[in-house]
Amino acid sequence: MADYNRYGSSSSSYGYGSAPSAPPASAYGYGYGSAPMPTPSYAGAGGAYPPSYPPPPPHMGMGMGMGMGMGPGFVVFPPGTHPDVERAFRAVDRDGSGSIDERELQDALSSAYHRFSIRTVRLLMFLFNNPASHSPSRMGPAEFVSLWNCLGQWRGIFDRYDRDRSGKIDSGELREALRSLGYAVPPPVIEVLIANYNNGMSRCGALDFDNFVECGMIVKGLTEKFKEKDTRYTGSATLSYDGFLSMVIPFIVP
Amino acid sequence: MADYNRYGSSSSSYGYGSAPSAPPASAYGYGYGSAPMPTPSYAGAGGAYPPSYPPPPPHMGMGMGMGMGMGPGFVVFPPGTHPDVERAFRAVDRDGSGSIDERELQDALSSAYHRFSIRTVRLLMFLFNNPASHSPSRMGPAEFVSLWNCLGQWRGIFDRYDRDRSGKIDSGELREALRSLGYAVPPPVIEVLIANYNNGMSRCGALDFDNFVECGMIVKGLTEKFKEKDTRYTGSATLSYDGFLSMVIPFIVP
Repeated sequence: MADYNRYGSSSSSYGYGSAPSAPPASAYGYGYGSAPMPTPSYAGAGGAYPPSYPPPPPHMGMGMGMGMGMGPGFVVFPPGTHPDVERAFRAVDRDGSGSIDERELQDALSSAYHRFSIRTVRLLMFLFNNPASHSPSRMGPAEFVSLWNCLGQWRGIFDRYDRDRSGKIDSGELREALRSLGYAVPPPVIEVLIANYNNGMSRCGALDFDNFVECGMIVKGLTEKFKEKDTRYTGSATLSYDGFLSMVIPFIVP
Repeated sequence: MADYNRYGSSSSSYGYGSAPSAPPASAYGYGYGSAPMPTPSYAGAGGAYPPSYPPPPPHMGMGMGMGMGMGPGFVVFPPGTHPDVERAFRAVDRDGSGSIDERELQDALSSAYHRFSIRTVRLLMFLFNNPASHSPSRMGPAEFVSLWNCLGQWRGIFDRYDRDRSGKIDSGELREALRSLGYAVPPPVIEVLIANYNNGMSRCGALDFDNFVECGMIVKGLTEKFKEKDTRYTGSATLSYDGFLSMVIPFIVP
């Protein structure tokens, strides 16, 4: 297990911290950003994710806009939101209700990024939604801005590793891309991810941007869930059977 | 968490033990069936699955047929295999290679059970395949027999809980059905499972047989993976980050 660098320092240079934690930690009784993070301990073999675990910058915090945007005519975006992002949201939120559903989210993202599969959209909704302020199947403006910014970062990463501009990245590139996003994923897991999207074959398999986002968001979400249980930051966590199922099953989106 | 009976004794009456463990435990250095099982300890609140954890009966053990069926003309079925099962396998294994791929498995099962989605077929291939004797994307006769028998049991359970013969079961029925198969799944997880197959809505949602098999196999597979780590049978387990990702990601089948 020593054949891959799990402590890649490159994550910080790509603004790992700008991607919000998802789903919001408050739902799990964990004060994300409200208390100093414990110093990571990477002494043992179980060290598993990059050393940095920064809270998101204030202008993108998941707490921003909670409860905002409720009701027609009262759609408030976080300060500094780019006009394009606001325009994309308002274009699909035609009734000005302040929240959008899966199909509207799909439409909104397709204007700038990609027409994601509904499966990927559903995963994004699950990961970025704030259940405290909206129903699980709707997203408000603050979460939409977080998602938009995160996808912008991921698009940049994808393009950087898609060196031949084929629109696809292979397993080695996926591993590097995920590492640059802050996730040190073991090679066997990378192979499974690639195989999952290539009819069970990992050899010569590759991922397009849609699949990259789906894959990466699964890794990001599972890592964040795991971190919540790994409170001492040791790279391992003790889970109850119920907790394990509750943690994992939401990621298994048909 | 005391509102559901996690120690339902009904599991044994439906022959839980006849469903083989999957994937074969030998791949994880765990001698399934070769050593006495530890006595389950359900003293604590963390007890999580039914008290019985029986090894499969000898005629259906996962070890049967390992290495058998390799090469044309040498397809060996476990003793006692029903002629229909053998016929279904041979009908799709046209070259007599002794193993079948995803599409062939889909065809073989459709003759008796259901034309499962390729997503479900892929999950079945992953869960029942024996990587020691075949490639991950092919299945041999012994595993096919195990899968066939398991599906027979699950079909019976599904029909029993589909009381109005609608071809679908709702969340309460799903919970009962899974419990009768030996899996005490917390209600919130049941709601997520139902919602995943009903466009995010759990209210009034239901599962057809295909989705029931997919759902149930995910629960079965995750439970068995978890049990492997819960060696003292306490209802909780300590996982490394790598172990956690390796355990979970294969279930996330696109």
